[in-house]
Amino acid sequence: MSRKKPPNLIDFAHFWQANTRWDDNDIYGHLNNTVHYKLFDSAVNIFLLDHNLLDFRNGESVYLVVETGCSYFAELAYPDELAVGLRIIRLGTSSVTYETGLFKEGETQAAAAGHFVHVLVDKASRKPVPIDEVSRAAFQRIMA
Amino acid sequence: MSRKKPPNLIDFAHFWQANTRWDDNDIYGHLNNTVHYKLFDSAVNIFLLDHNLLDFRNGESVYLVVETGCSYFAELAYPDELAVGLRIIRLGTSSVTYETGLFKEGETQAAAAGHFVHVLVDKASRKPVPIDEVSRAAFQRIMA
Amino acid sequence: MSRKKPPNLIDFAHFWQANTRWDDNDIYGHLNNTVHYKLFDSAVNIFLLDHNLLDFRNGESVYLVVETGCSYFAELAYPDELAVGLRIIRLGTSSVTYETGLFKEGETQAAAAGHFVHVLVDKASRKPVPIDEVSRAAFQRIMA
Amino acid sequence: MSRKKPPNLIDFAHFWQANTRWDDNDIYGHLNNTVHYKLFDSAVNIFLLDHNLLDFRNGESVYLVVETGCSYFAELAYPDELAVGLRIIRLGTSSVTYETGLFKEGETQAAAAGHFVHVLVDKASRKPVPIDEVSRAAFQRIMA
Repeated sequence: MSRKKPPNLIDFAHFWQANTRWDDNDIYGHLNNTVHYKLFDSAVNIFLLDHNLLDFRNGESVYLVVETGCSYFAELAYPDELAVGLRIIRLGTSSVTYETGLFKEGETQAAAAGHFVHVLVDKASRKPVPIDEVSRAAFQRIMA
Repeated sequence: MSRKKPPNLIDFAHFWQANTRWDDNDIYGHLNNTVHYKLFDSAVNIFLLDHNLLDFRNGESVYLVVETGCSYFAELAYPDELAVGLRIIRLGTSSVTYETGLFKEGETQAAAAGHFVHVLVDKASRKPVPIDEVSRAAFQRIMA
Repeated sequence: MSRKKPPNLIDFAHFWQANTRWDDNDIYGHLNNTVHYKLFDSAVNIFLLDHNLLDFRNGESVYLVVETGCSYFAELAYPDELAVGLRIIRLGTSSVTYETGLFKEGETQAAAAGHFVHVLVDKASRKPVPIDEVSRAAFQRIMA
Repeated sequence: MSRKKPPNLIDFAHFWQANTRWDDNDIYGHLNNTVHYKLFDSAVNIFLLDHNLLDFRNGESVYLVVETGCSYFAELAYPDELAVGLRIIRLGTSSVTYETGLFKEGETQAAAAGHFVHVLVDKASRKPVPIDEVSRAAFQRIMA
C-alpha cells in the first residue's frame, strides 16, 4: 500500500498488546484507518500512566496531541491480536514525538506505522509547560 | 446506579478478556455507555469464531443483532482491563439470546450486565434461517 | 428483525437530525448496533444543553446513564441522513426515562427504537440528587 | 498547538457539514484526535458517492487509505457543528491526495488540517488499478 518502508519490531523500544473489536472492521472487512490512531493514543497514554508521568484526572498538566500521521502497509482485521510499538524520536522542551508501529501478533514487519506528537500543557490555561527532569529521564529510556 | 442486582462471575459460562482504549473514556472520566455494547458484540462474535459457528466474510448465513440492552452498576474507565462474561438464556429456531456481563479484572460483581439477541439470517436475503444441530450443541454448552 | 412493533414519527415529541460516518458501517454494510446508542446519547444531551438543563463541564450535577436498550427493525447505513426522536415516558425524583427512535430521513416508521434512563447525580459524590422544578417543567413538555 | 499555519476556508474547494456526538469528547472535554480522521474519511467518501465515483458495495474497484496525517490548531467539542473542507493536491495514476480541513461552524480558520491519500484498487486482488477519465475529470474540479 504505502510506498514507505515498514519498520520492524526491533526498531521499537516499548510495546503494548491490544485486542480488536467487532466494530473496528469497516465495510471493506479490515480495521478502519481511524482505529490505528485509537491504538497509538492508548499505547502512548498507557506508557505515561505506567511510568507515573501523567495523572489525567487530577494533574495540573496534561499531554495534548498536536500532530499525528500514519502509513498503512498491510490490512489488519478483527479478531486479530495486535502489538503497538513505541519509540521517541524527538524530545523538546514541552513536546514528545513518538514513532509508532502496529503489528499483527507474531509478525515482525509493521502493518502500519506513524508518528504522534504530544505537548505538555497546563490543564487550565492550555499553555505549554516544560517537561520535568524525572519525565525526561523516563522518555530517554525509549529514545531511538 | 441501576437498581437491578448485578450478576456475579460464577453466573457466566464463557469469558473474553478485553482491554480499554483512551477514547473509551468520555468527558465524565468513565467508559461511555456505548463501549459496553462494543465489548459485548466483540465477545459474542469471538465465541462464534472460536467455535467455527460463523464465517462473516464468506459464509452464506450470518448472525444479525435484533435487540440489546444494558444496565450500568459501577463505573469503568481506561486503562482498566476487563472481562466479558457470556451465557445463553434462550435458544430459538433462528435466534440466540445471550446474557452478558462486564467485569473489572479481579472483581466478581459485574460493573454492567445486559442481553444481546442474535438472529441467524441468510446473508443475501436477510431472512431468518434455522440454526443447525452442530451450532445448537455448541450453544447448549454455555446455556444457563 | 425485532418482533416488537416499530414506533412512528408522530409518537415522538422532539427530534435531532444526525448524519452518519464512514466508520459507522460494519462489515455487514450497515450501521453497527452500537452507533444507535451513540446517536441516542447525543440527542438526549443536545436536548438538555439546548434547554439549559445541563452544564457538563462546570455544573455541580450531571446526568449519568443507568440503563439503555434498543430494538432493531430495519438496517441503516452510511451515508444515510437520520433523525432521532425523543419523548419522556417516566420522570422520577432523580431519573428521566426517554423513549428513543431512529429514523431514516423521509421515513415515518422507526428503523430502531429504544429506551434510555438518566439519573441526575452530584458530579463529585455520584449520589442521586433531585431534579429541580425548572428542569421538571422542561421535561414535562416532551412527556408522552 | 501545532506550529504549522492553519488553512482558511477559501483554501478548500468542497465542503461537507458534520455534526458531533457525545462520545466524540474525551476526558479532556474536546474532540478526541481520532474523530477528525473519522470526519475526513466520511467527507471524502461522500464526495465520491455524490459524484458516482464509488460503489463501495458492488463496485469492482474501491479506494483504500494508504496514508493520513493531521495537525491540530484549536480544540473542538461536542456539540459543535462542523464543516470539513477538501481539495485535491495530487492526482496520480491510481492515487488521490486530498488536503483536508476541519472548521467550527462560522469560523474561517481551520481548527485542524490534514492530508488523506486514497489508492484505487481492485476489490478482490487489492492491486492498484488506474483511475478512469470520468473520475479524473471530477477530481480535477476540486484540485488546488
